[in-house]
Parts: sequence; C-alpha cells; structure tokens
Amino acid sequence: MAAEQDPEGRAAARPLLTDLYQATMALGYWRAGRARDAAEFELFFRRCPFGGAFALAAGLRDCVRFLRAFRLRDADVQFLASVLPPDTDPAFFEHLRALDCSEVTVRALPEGSLAFPGVPLLQVSGPLLVVQLLETPLLCLVSYASLVATNAARLRLIAGPEKRLLEMGLRRAQGPDGGLTASTYSYLGGFDGSSNVLAGQLRGVPVAGTLAHSFVTSFSGSEVPPDPMLVPAAGEGPGVDLAAKAQVWLEHVCEPHPGERAAFVAYALAFPRAFQGLLDSYSVRRSGLPNFLAVALALGELGYRAVGVRLDSGDLLQQAQEIRKVFRAAAAQFQVPWLASVPIAVSNNIDEEALARLAQEGSEVNVIGIGTTAVTCPQQPSLGCVYKLVAVGGQPRMKLTEDPEKQTLPGSKAAFRLLGSDGSLLMDVLQLAEEPAPQAGQELRVWPPGAQEPCTVRPAQVEPLLRLCFQQGQLCEPLPSLAESRALVQLSLSQLSPEHRRLQSPAQYQVVLSERLQALVNSLHARASP
Amino acid sequence: MAAEQDPEGRAAARPLLTDLYQATMALGYWRAGRARDAAEFELFFRRCPFGGAFALAAGLRDCVRFLRAFRLRDADVQFLASVLPPDTDPAFFEHLRALDCSEVTVRALPEGSLAFPGVPLLQVSGPLLVVQLLETPLLCLVSYASLVATNAARLRLIAGPEKRLLEMGLRRAQGPDGGLTASTYSYLGGFDGSSNVLAGQLRGVPVAGTLAHSFVTSFSGSEVPPDPMLVPAAGEGPGVDLAAKAQVWLEHVCEPHPGERAAFVAYALAFPRAFQGLLDSYSVRRSGLPNFLAVALALGELGYRAVGVRLDSGDLLQQAQEIRKVFRAAAAQFQVPWLASVPIAVSNNIDEEALARLAQEGSEVNVIGIGTTAVTCPQQPSLGCVYKLVAVGGQPRMKLTEDPEKQTLPGSKAAFRLLGSDGSLLMDVLQLAEEPAPQAGQELRVWPPGAQEPCTVRPAQVEPLLRLCFQQGQLCEPLPSLAESRALVQLSLSQLSPEHRRLQSPAQYQVVLSERLQALVNSLHARASP
Repeated sequence: MAAEQDPEGRAAARPLLTDLYQATMALGYWRAGRARDAAEFELFFRRCPFGGAFALAAGLRDCVRFLRAFRLRDADVQFLASVLPPDTDPAFFEHLRALDCSEVTVRALPEGSLAFPGVPLLQVSGPLLVVQLLETPLLCLVSYASLVATNAARLRLIAGPEKRLLEMGLRRAQGPDGGLTASTYSYLGGFDGSSNVLAGQLRGVPVAGTLAHSFVTSFSGSEVPPDPMLVPAAGEGPGVDLAAKAQVWLEHVCEPHPGERAAFVAYALAFPRAFQGLLDSYSVRRSGLPNFLAVALALGELGYRAVGVRLDSGDLLQQAQEIRKVFRAAAAQFQVPWLASVPIAVSNNIDEEALARLAQEGSEVNVIGIGTTAVTCPQQPSLGCVYKLVAVGGQPRMKLTEDPEKQTLPGSKAAFRLLGSDGSLLMDVLQLAEEPAPQAGQELRVWPPGAQEPCTVRPAQVEPLLRLCFQQGQLCEPLPSLAESRALVQLSLSQLSPEHRRLQSPAQYQVVLSERLQALVNSLHARASP
Repeated sequence: MAAEQDPEGRAAARPLLTDLYQATMALGYWRAGRARDAAEFELFFRRCPFGGAFALAAGLRDCVRFLRAFRLRDADVQFLASVLPPDTDPAFFEHLRALDCSEVTVRALPEGSLAFPGVPLLQVSGPLLVVQLLETPLLCLVSYASLVATNAARLRLIAGPEKRLLEMGLRRAQGPDGGLTASTYSYLGGFDGSSNVLAGQLRGVPVAGTLAHSFVTSFSGSEVPPDPMLVPAAGEGPGVDLAAKAQVWLEHVCEPHPGERAAFVAYALAFPRAFQGLLDSYSVRRSGLPNFLAVALALGELGYRAVGVRLDSGDLLQQAQEIRKVFRAAAAQFQVPWLASVPIAVSNNIDEEALARLAQEGSEVNVIGIGTTAVTCPQQPSLGCVYKLVAVGGQPRMKLTEDPEKQTLPGSKAAFRLLGSDGSLLMDVLQLAEEPAPQAGQELRVWPPGAQEPCTVRPAQVEPLLRLCFQQGQLCEPLPSLAESRALVQLSLSQLSPEHRRLQSPAQYQVVLSERLQALVNSLHARASP
C-alpha cells in the first residue's frame, strides 16, 4: 500500500533526530560495560489531552518504519564523534556503527485504540544502549500523531456522523512533516479527508479541494478563454459558450462582479462535473451567490450539476441558512430540484465551540474545513508522552522523585482492558508481566491510583491490550491499513460509556494496578525512604 | 555549509506538499488560457504573534531550497491525474510535467529581520499557474519558522543576555521536521543551542545534552564497570578507582542512593572533563546533591572540574539558591574554589512567566532548557501567514471581502523602513513598485491604517526592505549563514524602541501606505461599491 512507499517521509526520522543526551548516555552505558544489559522502557502519557478522559494511540506505523531502517551511517557517527569528547575510545564508535534494531522487541497498543494515562502505548525492550537511543524519535513519532488523532476524534464527536469534516491546515503546520502527520492522523481520528495532496499520494488519505480567493480575484471579467465552449454532460449535441449562457441566467438573478463570474465560468469549464463556487471574494449576497447561481443554472441546462459552495468569512451558520433558502427558492422557480440540496461548505478558524454551533440541529452546513485547530491543537499543542525505564537486567526500576506526578510504575508489565456484560469498558489493569491474565467472570482485587484499599471487579470480558508488533528487526504481523485503524477508532469510541466520552468535565476512566504491582511499588518506596 | 547538504530535509518539501485546491485552480487557469499570465503574490501576516508588536522573518533558506528543486515527477503528475476529472485534457498534465521555477522571481525580507503586519515577507512573481502552486509550501515553510524565531526572541528578551537558553523540545514537535525547524529557528531567534543532534548535523546549530533520569535509575549501585580506573586530568600519575574515591568523599557529605552514585561515576568515567549531575531522580537534598558533590570532589582530586548540575522538577529557583549555597560552602570547606560557580541548569515546562522568575535578579540559575514552549508556542501555535494575489497581467488585484480584516492591499509594491536620527525605527512604508523611494531628510505624506487624513514624516534614514533573492531558478546572492542571521536578529531588536519591544501591551509599530497606494485602494473600493 501507499504508506510503504514513503522513502522521503521515512528518511526524515533518522537516528540522529534525537536529543544529544541520548548519545552521551550511550557513551556512559558503554563505558560502564552496560551497553548490552537487557532493558525495557514504556512510552505513555500521564494526563489525557484537552481536559477529556480518553486519547487514541497512533503513530505506530511511523515507529515501525523508523525501527526497521535504524542504522547510524558513517557521517552520523562522525558527527557524534565531533560533539563527544575528543579522547573517547574509538571502540565506542565501532559499537555505534554496528547498531541496529535486530535485538529490539516492541509491544504496542494497536493503532487507533483507546489509550489512558499510564497504560503503555509502546513497550520497548532490548539492549540498554539501543533502546535508550530510540527514546526521542519514538516520542516524536507517537506524541503528535496521538494528539492529532484524539483532537480529530473530539471534533468528530462534536460534529456528529453526518457532517463532512476536512482537514486543511497544512499551511499552519510545523513544517512539511507536521503537515503530513496532521493530515494522516486527523483522517485516522475521524475526519473524512484532507486538502494535503502528499497525504493522498503517500498515505492514501482522501483529498479534496476547489478554489481560493486568488483564483476569483485573478479574473477581471474581460478575459477570453481559448475555448469557451462546453459540451453537454451527456456528450451529445453542440457545445455552448458557457460564459454567454451564464450571462443570460444572470439577468434572472441580479448585478454581480464580472471578474468573479469569469472565474466561476473558468472553473466550471475545467470542472463541469465538480463545479463549486467560493462565494465571499466580494459580497456573498450581492455578487457571489448570484454569480454561482448563474453558472450553476447554465451548467444545469447542459445536464451538469454543481457540487457545492464554500464560505470562508462572516457568520457561517447564518449565511448557510440564507443560502439554503435561496437555493430552495431558485430550485422551485427554475425547476431544478437538485439545486435545493447543493452542499454548503464552510471554513475560517473553526474551533470546538464554533464547530458545535455549525453542527447544531437545523444547521444547513454540510462540509466543514478545519485548519489551525486540526493541526496545531491549540487547546493543548503537545501530548506530553514520556518514555521511562521500567526494568534493567530483569530488575524493576522506578523513578522516585519528590514530585509524585513524575513517579513511574516499575517492572515489565502486561495491560488488560476489562469489559462489562454489555460490552462497555470498565477499567484498564496494569500488572506484572509474569502474573496470570485476569479471567472473565472471576473476581479480581485491584488498586485504584492513590487508594488506601483495594477494590474488586468481576469483568464479563478481558482483552489483552498490548500486541507484539516488532521483533528481531522485523514486523511480527502486517499492520492494519490506515482505513482499518480509522474504523477501529469509531468502534473503540462506541464502547466508551457516555460519561467517559463526554468532552467537558468527563468522569475519569480508571487505570488500576494488580495487587502484586501495587506491592512492588510499595516495597520500592519503602526501600528508598527508610 | 552544512545547510546545503540537507537532501532529506529538503526532500520533505515536495511539490505535492500542497493543498489540492492549488492543483484544481491550476487546471482552471490552464483551461482559461491564463496559465502563463504574469502574476504576483505577497506572503505576509495580519497580526503580530503573542500579543507583541514585532515578529521576525525566517524560513527563507528552506523556501529557496524548495524553489530550486521544484519539479513534478512522473509519479506526482500521475497522482494528480488520479484525483482530477478523468476527462481532463492530457495537455494539462504535459504542462505540469514541464513546470519549474525558472520564471519565478522572489523578493524577501532578509532572514532574521523584523517583520510587521502587512509588510510582505515574500513577494513571489511569475506565471500565474506556477506561483499559485507555490502558495501552500511557502506558507508552510515561512509561517512556523517565523513563529518559532519570534517566540525564541521573546524568551531571550525575558531571560536577558547572560542566561544560557537551550531548546530541547524535539519530542514535543509535530513530527521530525517540526523538531528540526524548531531547533533551527529557535537558535536563529536567540537561543544558544539545542538538544537536537540532527539540527547540529544538518544546520550547524550548537548541540548540548547530558543525562536523563533513565540513566540514573538504570544503576542499582552493584554494577562493576569493566574499567573503573580514571587517569588524572594532567595525564600523568597512576589511574584511580573513581567509585572508591567518590565513596570516600561521600562520607564527608551524607547517605544517598548507591545507584545514583554509580550512575554519576559511570557518567564521570565517560565524561571526566564534562561531568554533570542530574540531581532529582530520587531526592535532591538527601541524595542527588551529596552524590554529585562526592563524584565532583573525587574528580577534582584528579584535576578535573565538574561542569554542571541539572534539575527537572520542583521549585527550580528555590532549589538553585539552596544548591548554590551548598556549593559555596563545600568550595570553602574543601578548598576547591571552582565548585562555587558550577553552572546550575534547569528545565520542566518553562513558559514566559516561569522564565521571568528564573531570570530575576539574584537568581542562581545559569542554564535554562525549554522544550514545549519553544516548539509548540502554546500562546499562539501558528502565525497565520497568508499568500495573496496583488497583481495579474500588470493590473492590481484586491480581495474586497465584507470582512475588513481579510481585505488585501493591491498592486506590486515596494517597502521601506524609516529611521529616526538616533537610528531607531519610526515606521514601515508600503508603496507602489513604480513610485520613487522615500528620500532621507525629505518630508513624506503617508496614510496610517484606517486614518481619515495623511500624516507627514521626515526620516533621517530610509532602508529598502525587500531584497531580490531568487530569479531564473537561481539564488541571486548567497544567503547569510544561520549564525549571521542570528546576529541580525539581535541587531534588529536593538533598533526597536522599548515601547515596541515590550512583550505585554506594547505600542503598535505603524505600517503606513504611500499616498498613491492609498489612492489605489480607494479607487478599487469605489469601483466595487457603486
């Protein structure tokens, strides 16, 4: 599939796309004789973004692509040598030159599944030096993808299933790759498509686009197209001068800008089966709407149907209601019923609040383009994922800092999702890897975070959360396609109870610890604070 | 220089990294016989970011790299054919295949200069179809670079010239390229360096990094390094077991975590001349600080000087004051004067407000690492640059939308910066390209935005703002290096008066119109609203 033919997207995530301290620590591990110690890291977040109670796991595809290609080239090693101490043992650089991910194992939440605080999105195990070096690139690839997917899922929840949501924020992204990532993962999170052509080419995201104000304002009305004639939609009969035809229709409708009409005619000649008008280059009511109607009606005479209008300024909801009224009236007056339901697309700095207004009952808006909000996630522009050491040499490790928020959960772990008899999600359980899995129908004692006592739960179903996805340098099973992951998002969200799915002040979804994991936390605490 | 050897960074900004409507408009222009009409676009922003009164122009280097390489490959044209109407004239695709930027001319604000609302950062002229296609990639390359550079300049103004500011937000960026762009342009804006190794390799940004909590917590204290011996700094005399030596010193200082000490010893063995301690993996006061002192003093005995400590949690200012006191006391007690001034580095979600506190007088913090705030610019995560058609076929064009904020200034323009006799900036003037330049010492009548009457100004100096930088497919003069642009930033900021440089509620810097440009605006308005 297209995503696999992405040499340039992949090339950007190179081994040196990392924080320098990964390389200095690598030298430290190597000097201490610990480069090959077996280590395990977990990648997770501590708080759900945007004040919500869920996030979506995303970015795995990019991580796997990065891991498969991970190798330091000669130029990379030379650069590292130039920023490390000049008397560094050359054997260290030989060690770097030989590195790859053939001894790295990754378990992951499947792309598009629900993710909750503390539950690993990735478990990465392998030689200490290598898995340390992977930290920054993996964080970079997972955090933003998951943030954008979650943001898109929220916007989809607000818009409801019917509205067509298009991401169009490429120009607001953090450079080329930010744009590509945003387009890919807002589609995964529930958008219908993107304006970003590269995301279509490389990732198979459906693309959409029509015309900008520059196209409209580039016409004065005096231009003469080399071929102004358009043949009827059925392909039979003589061609017709579309501009002249639109002029005739215009007299039925009023006195608009001739350049705008010329632009619409030019666009309609290029796209007779996909004509859309951008209505607000001059005045929507006095110019854009009449010009659109004239061209759409002229096309209609030839058997073509216009496919939409777009508004990019002003009160979008209000204008959409007025335009729909005019469409209905014109459809009746000129006996062209399809005109009544021409889709109305809107854009212009739409955030969650504006989207809720546009999606309200009775709204005549059909398509919503979202740029800045989809790409920059201004409510919270980063997810804050972390990558923490949980075990080394088979021994659990824990960061016991004085800031309780920054403490970590020790040990190699397994994670399970417990479901009720109605299929709804009850809670996630973290436990030590060697513990037996919880059993459906059996009572389980677990520790909610910060609780003084355990509580019990009897799940009707138990789902293991982390799948083995990368081992010995290779993918263990084919990754689902982007479209399949996108479907998983909607399925996952449907299993979440309304109080957890709510976007404002939701109930927190619980992630609990098994009794043995809680005991391990307590014993490491006790050992550190005598 | 390094920036030119950036095949993979450049490859990401490909011609299809664009909004689909650029391609549909291209077909519309082509069908209307206007593909080769001479057109001019301006790239500018409407409001300064972050509530300030200035921005910095940045990203030109990436734009030039993109323009030079601009060409649609066969696979690109085939993809466009797959998303455009199936009956599109094949001659259009032949036209696309032959496109390049050999007829495109770009004038630009020099990299690192001050930019104000409405003043073009780029003027792009050439065949209508090509310069339309360039819109999205140019916006993508300029907007974020300028935003990050401006953000970094503000943080530098807050921190003052002495503090060392390091960008370390790669993991919070919008994917690989967001990280690379952030590292590059935060350096341009006034940071001292970055943690991002790739920015060092590809862009020559100074890189910095030491150790993370994972390094510290990976040690239990029972590990035996293969070679625990360290030779004295002078290179003479027998090697010494550094761990044992630190243990001796530790008895002078107290009872800390043995794993943390082992980690510090391991790091010091790898970096005897660049030893830094990360103090807060367990407890700063009870463990991190004594362990650091023990290892630093042991190293000191061998003639090495520790170079710093880092804190990543808790009250950073308060802890820095306490640590400095301990350093001074230990320096006196053990007669190692250099210990008193070991730099203290801090990090942990530092925003403008937190930075102001850390930079206050008397603060003992020396180095400040900034991640999320440098990369995501959470106060305003996008700059909102636009790219607007101003002339076509030699005729001025203007978007006259009902939203006055979205109106554009017509015509091919020149821009000048007027300076007072003390070298301070007075205002920027936009005028028609064919008008004579304002003369130093001569009175000039200009129109401030929205004014009812013109005002007069007599500049002591006049600087043309836009430089011809790209013509006939090539760079017109070598671009300054990143370091030179970085120096220009500080020079430019120093010319800005304090009331414009102020970060909160600054006085707005005026961008005025020449009388002829104002008259053109008025006449186009009058023509559109009869």
